Amino acid sequence: MFRTHTCGELRMADVNTEVTLAGWVQRIRDLGAMTFIDLRDRYGITQLVVDEETNELVTTKLTELGREFVIQAKGTVRERSSKNSNIETGEIEIALSEIQILNPAELPPFTIQDNTDGGDDLRMKYRYLDLRRNTVRENLILRAKMAHAVRSYLNDKKFIETETPVLIKSTPEGARDFIVPSRMNEGEFYALPQSPQVFKQLLMIAGFDRYYQIVKCFRDEDLRADRQPEFTQIDCEMAFVEQKDVLETFEGLTKFLFKETLNLEIKEFPWMPYSEAMEKYGSDKPDIRFEMLINDISETVKGKGFGVFDSAEFIGAICAPNCATYSRKQLDQLTNWVKRPQIGAKGLVYVKCNDDGSFKSSVDKFYSQDDLKQWADAVGAKPHDLILVMSGDRDKTLSALGELRLEMGTQLELRDKNIFKPLWVVDFPLLEWNEETQRFHAMHHPFTAPKPEDVHLLDTDPGKVRANAYDLVINGVEIGGGSVRIYNSELQATMFDKLGFTTEEAQTQFGFLMNAFKYGAPPHAGIAFGFDRLVSMFAGLDSIRDVIAFPKNNSGRDVMIDSPSPVAQEQLDELSLKLNIKEKE
Amino acid sequence: MFRTHTCGELRMADVNTEVTLAGWVQRIRDLGAMTFIDLRDRYGITQLVVDEETNELVTTKLTELGREFVIQAKGTVRERSSKNSNIETGEIEIALSEIQILNPAELPPFTIQDNTDGGDDLRMKYRYLDLRRNTVRENLILRAKMAHAVRSYLNDKKFIETETPVLIKSTPEGARDFIVPSRMNEGEFYALPQSPQVFKQLLMIAGFDRYYQIVKCFRDEDLRADRQPEFTQIDCEMAFVEQKDVLETFEGLTKFLFKETLNLEIKEFPWMPYSEAMEKYGSDKPDIRFEMLINDISETVKGKGFGVFDSAEFIGAICAPNCATYSRKQLDQLTNWVKRPQIGAKGLVYVKCNDDGSFKSSVDKFYSQDDLKQWADAVGAKPHDLILVMSGDRDKTLSALGELRLEMGTQLELRDKNIFKPLWVVDFPLLEWNEETQRFHAMHHPFTAPKPEDVHLLDTDPGKVRANAYDLVINGVEIGGGSVRIYNSELQATMFDKLGFTTEEAQTQFGFLMNAFKYGAPPHAGIAFGFDRLVSMFAGLDSIRDVIAFPKNNSGRDVMIDSPSPVAQEQLDELSLKLNIKEKE
Repeated sequence: MFRTHTCGELRMADVNTEVTLAGWVQRIRDLGAMTFIDLRDRYGITQLVVDEETNELVTTKLTELGREFVIQAKGTVRERSSKNSNIETGEIEIALSEIQILNPAELPPFTIQDNTDGGDDLRMKYRYLDLRRNTVRENLILRAKMAHAVRSYLNDKKFIETETPVLIKSTPEGARDFIVPSRMNEGEFYALPQSPQVFKQLLMIAGFDRYYQIVKCFRDEDLRADRQPEFTQIDCEMAFVEQKDVLETFEGLTKFLFKETLNLEIKEFPWMPYSEAMEKYGSDKPDIRFEMLINDISETVKGKGFGVFDSAEFIGAICAPNCATYSRKQLDQLTNWVKRPQIGAKGLVYVKCNDDGSFKSSVDKFYSQDDLKQWADAVGAKPHDLILVMSGDRDKTLSALGELRLEMGTQLELRDKNIFKPLWVVDFPLLEWNEETQRFHAMHHPFTAPKPEDVHLLDTDPGKVRANAYDLVINGVEIGGGSVRIYNSELQATMFDKLGFTTEEAQTQFGFLMNAFKYGAPPHAGIAFGFDRLVSMFAGLDSIRDVIAFPKNNSGRDVMIDSPSPVAQEQLDELSLKLNIKEKE
Repeated sequence: MFRTHTCGELRMADVNTEVTLAGWVQRIRDLGAMTFIDLRDRYGITQLVVDEETNELVTTKLTELGREFVIQAKGTVRERSSKNSNIETGEIEIALSEIQILNPAELPPFTIQDNTDGGDDLRMKYRYLDLRRNTVRENLILRAKMAHAVRSYLNDKKFIETETPVLIKSTPEGARDFIVPSRMNEGEFYALPQSPQVFKQLLMIAGFDRYYQIVKCFRDEDLRADRQPEFTQIDCEMAFVEQKDVLETFEGLTKFLFKETLNLEIKEFPWMPYSEAMEKYGSDKPDIRFEMLINDISETVKGKGFGVFDSAEFIGAICAPNCATYSRKQLDQLTNWVKRPQIGAKGLVYVKCNDDGSFKSSVDKFYSQDDLKQWADAVGAKPHDLILVMSGDRDKTLSALGELRLEMGTQLELRDKNIFKPLWVVDFPLLEWNEETQRFHAMHHPFTAPKPEDVHLLDTDPGKVRANAYDLVINGVEIGGGSVRIYNSELQATMFDKLGFTTEEAQTQFGFLMNAFKYGAPPHAGIAFGFDRLVSMFAGLDSIRDVIAFPKNNSGRDVMIDSPSPVAQEQLDELSLKLNIKEKE
């Protein structure tokens, strides 16, 4: 060992002890007669002191030192004359007797401090230096702590952690797979798993009863700000259970994590049907930290000669409390905000509820004060409130109002990161119609069970069939999702048929699963949590990148190791592959 | 929930309780007036009883039942008249009142019993049925238990579990990489990690101090019986440590695992230099459960006119205790055994030490009784022992004698699977000469530090330089290995030079690591355990396949899901790839 203690553990009780520390030079202060060095390691910072008169040897070494040098320092613990209550070792310091430079350091390209001067790109390139910063390391430590808590909880509940394969089989359903050419099987490919879905179902058929895994998954999607080509799931499956058993178990896990890592007690999670979430929040992942619900005011506002509303399928409104004082400029900004392509609304109608009981709206031409009073009653607006109205196609308008609601929530500071409001969204539709492919797709995945009471609709009105599927949503973020599975091979075959698979396609891709169903499959259900997202929410961060040790950028590149990269021709030859790059025109 | 209890938990204390169980039908015994059903789940077996007179409804259902049907059964717990002490629920049975078939089952292709009638191929294809067998499931449960114990131990020692990326960069050094084409970066590829080596070193440079991960690794090698293209490592790294700190920590881990999972107390592990292991055991992974060491008898046997020995570089012998009675046939079999291509010896000389103090050898023509007495003294042979002698090139002969020693150990039943004898093999050579490429290769990997006292030999006699590298060997199996790392960028550059990298190659492949060394790299060292192998050893198995839930066969195929498999043309097009399959001639 290069040290007797870490830089975080010495206290008053250690005074007069001879110690050896090792770590990085955080800061050097030369006060003439005395020099102070802040020595840093993962565990903390300890102040080293050199009295220049008494120790010439050490003093000479000091002149060579710089920031981020790795040193080993010997000395005696003593009480500080001026104590620092901000750090845990702040009552003591080390009177140095010996110092050894273990490794020098060039000046880092950015400062190793909580508030660094390094930009994103630079910090990604030198990720190993970025990880030295307390804030970044603490995120990764939180991640490890949460993973451990997840395992403790699930092990206690008799879940068996089981590794499933990473080299599996490509299936065209769902997102795009990463594929891996097989050298030993010419012209054939493995795929990296988007999730261990079929394997965990097979483990239920195998009688494992309760399975979990904290596991890497892969999707070759075009990356948005908060997507990574490889991500981590808490993946679980249970046999002989119904929906409520799964929700109870994983509500328990979530509460346990809040308690263990943030010391927060969270009450029972409400259950909200998908249809209610869409109608009241315009989203299947409602942020219930604040109200400001969407109201359907179609009936109230139609028939007064305002063509936009009269011809609209749906007119909806939210009531922003205490916003009647919004200026023209603020209202214009909101209007522009909803017109952005991301929201795609045509416009925004407002009604200010004045303190004197009168109303001022952008559609005064069409609506009397009495009319507007009816609007206010319909949305529960009080004097001083602002009503915001949008209209058009029902689904799109609900969704746009949902976005506007979140924006207003943010503007009104109703979305406190330190408050956590989880809920279960349940009763998702089984299928959703895809305009592009002109067929139904599985909303969750093709193994999700329809609600027994809706099965009869499969032939007559497939879009109406609800699934025993559920999402865990916290603060407007989808943390996890799952479903009760089909465990009957005929129902599974029917599902594949509804999804437009030919019998042959279904057999080629999922034959082994349907075959497995024939040998005694138990009822089973499962769930998966996005672990990166869960950790980033607990850490109060907006991006999952900050809770991943070595993330990739938006082009899927690791700029630190410069990957992906070209490979040697021999590698391609061995794999019987050729590049087929089109000339750029 | 489909059940109130599992099939493993009911006891006498539960008598008269109304219960609901669910599980698989293991066995049905129709005794006329009574029918017994053994109901199985992961937790055990419970006996269900139907009295045919009292419950006609259930009796009718019984006629439909078959092996492996999934059923739900309601009834009352009662004391058995004839108890079964072999199973934990053997004192009770359930008097059935209701039975429901949750899923029928076709007759499985092999019996779901500890000793199944299914062959390897069939069991691989129906792995989900094979996993139903107690013996197979218990292996996987042991695996989960061991993973949990590893995490408990390392978390206690302040190791941070940190996930490193799976999509990394291909490096030609070492074994063959699996590569993954990048769609977003045309013509470029990720590689799957053979180990997280560089990332864990970067985490040390990042100040994480102690890292671990139980992590999938990948090697596209031609598969031998006990190799899998994807395998799992316990991967660890520590900063500010020396070799002995690492060995202490991981000896502690190993002892902890023995204690936690097998309730075995293992004594301190001996340290054996590589050179001693090679000389005395003919192997860098000695099985020290038994002695029968190799003796160099070159000086003793040369110069008596036996040309084979006189011209040999090396003559070595082992003494097989109490084997003087080996028959001609047994000795011929041993001779044939060492002549197999796997061993490649030219022949085998024997000396029987008779009970009367005389000797009988296969080289009596050249050696007198006195000569043979000298041999016996040299190898410590007593009357009744058998001396086996081989000669030739030193390294090859040692290795062949090592194999012969193991074979004799097996024949003499000296290799008890329930006895565990771990040791550390230390002081490995840093480099090994490769005849094929006519250059030195890193024996461990290019980041391994030479012993400081041997560094001066790097220029003059590189093959003699010893490394601070170590292996954990248990019962002749390499369980883990690691090394103290180079943390100085100049020494690392020298190493790359010795390994035949041009400066440019080193820069392209490992530039980011050498660059990282410049910003304050601490001294660090690490180790990785082969987790599959460790579990299979603890389970008393010969193959790692039995401790992997969904293993691949020797062609790297998963025969259950039929992977690898061809992919759609569009997938290749998107990846700018073309198949380049040569016509078979």
